[in-house]
Amino acid sequence: MATFNNPVLVLLSGGLDSSVLLHYVAQRTQHGAVHTLSFNYGQRHDRELECARWQASSAGAAHHTVLDISFLAGLVGNATALVRGGREVPDLAELAPEQRAQPPTYVPNRNMILIAMAAAHAESAEIHNLFYGAQAQDEYGYWDCTKPFLDGINAVLSLNRAAPVRVHAPLIANSKADNVRLGLELGVDFAQTWSCYRGGELACGTCPTCVERLNAFKACGRRDPLPYMRLDS
Amino acid sequence: MATFNNPVLVLLSGGLDSSVLLHYVAQRTQHGAVHTLSFNYGQRHDRELECARWQASSAGAAHHTVLDISFLAGLVGNATALVRGGREVPDLAELAPEQRAQPPTYVPNRNMILIAMAAAHAESAEIHNLFYGAQAQDEYGYWDCTKPFLDGINAVLSLNRAAPVRVHAPLIANSKADNVRLGLELGVDFAQTWSCYRGGELACGTCPTCVERLNAFKACGRRDPLPYMRLDS
Repeated sequence: MATFNNPVLVLLSGGLDSSVLLHYVAQRTQHGAVHTLSFNYGQRHDRELECARWQASSAGAAHHTVLDISFLAGLVGNATALVRGGREVPDLAELAPEQRAQPPTYVPNRNMILIAMAAAHAESAEIHNLFYGAQAQDEYGYWDCTKPFLDGINAVLSLNRAAPVRVHAPLIANSKADNVRLGLELGVDFAQTWSCYRGGELACGTCPTCVERLNAFKACGRRDPLPYMRLDS
Repeated sequence: MATFNNPVLVLLSGGLDSSVLLHYVAQRTQHGAVHTLSFNYGQRHDRELECARWQASSAGAAHHTVLDISFLAGLVGNATALVRGGREVPDLAELAPEQRAQPPTYVPNRNMILIAMAAAHAESAEIHNLFYGAQAQDEYGYWDCTKPFLDGINAVLSLNRAAPVRVHAPLIANSKADNVRLGLELGVDFAQTWSCYRGGELACGTCPTCVERLNAFKACGRRDPLPYMRLDS
């Protein structure tokens, strides 16, 4: 069991992976108070942030902070399908294989921005260990969810002479199915996590993240407790 | 002469170093359109941002963007003297030598945040070269203005498979006096640059940045055209 005697900060989107990560940190590491940090960056829906709040409370987090960075939509709005006013979210089936390396849901340099701000928040609060929910990517890949990205960020942060923050991504080698399995072991309520990239009342069931999530549950022989608008099988 | 056939983005605070950098890029490199980006992060005064606008126009920049990131004050407010509502700005003479390594004007992880956002902005606008005004530090040091910091950030950004952005800091080995000399050669109007960390109508003349700036002009045998509240010599 990893030991962090001091408080820790967990980046929590309210999605499946970061929710599993939060409960993993809370139950499977030795740590001080658990702080959680979510970002409002002009997502297409608020459901994700509601799930983040729910999970923080369910994991017994001492503090949950939501930081409004909705200016990000103005900064990169035209370049991404993930924010309100950006491009349409495509179905996974519409994506050519070469688009999966950097799909339309990619937000330019998002993880460096989020981790940089989380590290600043941690440093200000004298927290030295920061967790984020990167996982091995099943259906497509983002360059800023990889181990070399994580190692590079840590190499930069370690230059801080006074109060270096270290970023941990203990689930980085997990498939999404591994995370579903781990979450089930940890008692995570997956009905209170949100993955869909579209802005509907119900998860769409066909966007890249819905498909990836549904496949992960299928691989575990379990049913996703989230209601979907459309299920192909 | 360095060649950048495509548009370039210059991070412009409105201070002495970034203003010299902007005119250096405009006059001494081969480049496409020059874009400038300033951040409003809850500085103690707006004078710096007015100077940024003035310099962008004076250097013939094609686009000047000001991004409001004043949430940063909430994120790190207690930890820094640089933002409204933060700690008092000390005189340089009050700082013990060990405080100069990480002085009270330090903003936790500021440059990673600013460069991460600037790189996102550049990537969205299909700009591949980003400039920032790091310089060798005379009176005190920030870990996130160093060459290892710059190299580390570039190592991370180079992982981007689709549209990597490269960060350049051509003045990183310059002392502030070198930058004053270079600015004089380039015809920079230093009366339209702002360095003081305090929020007064006139530059104070005694905070760490004022002292550093005044020393730089003195080393060049020139008078700083900016009016000061108090000059010790």
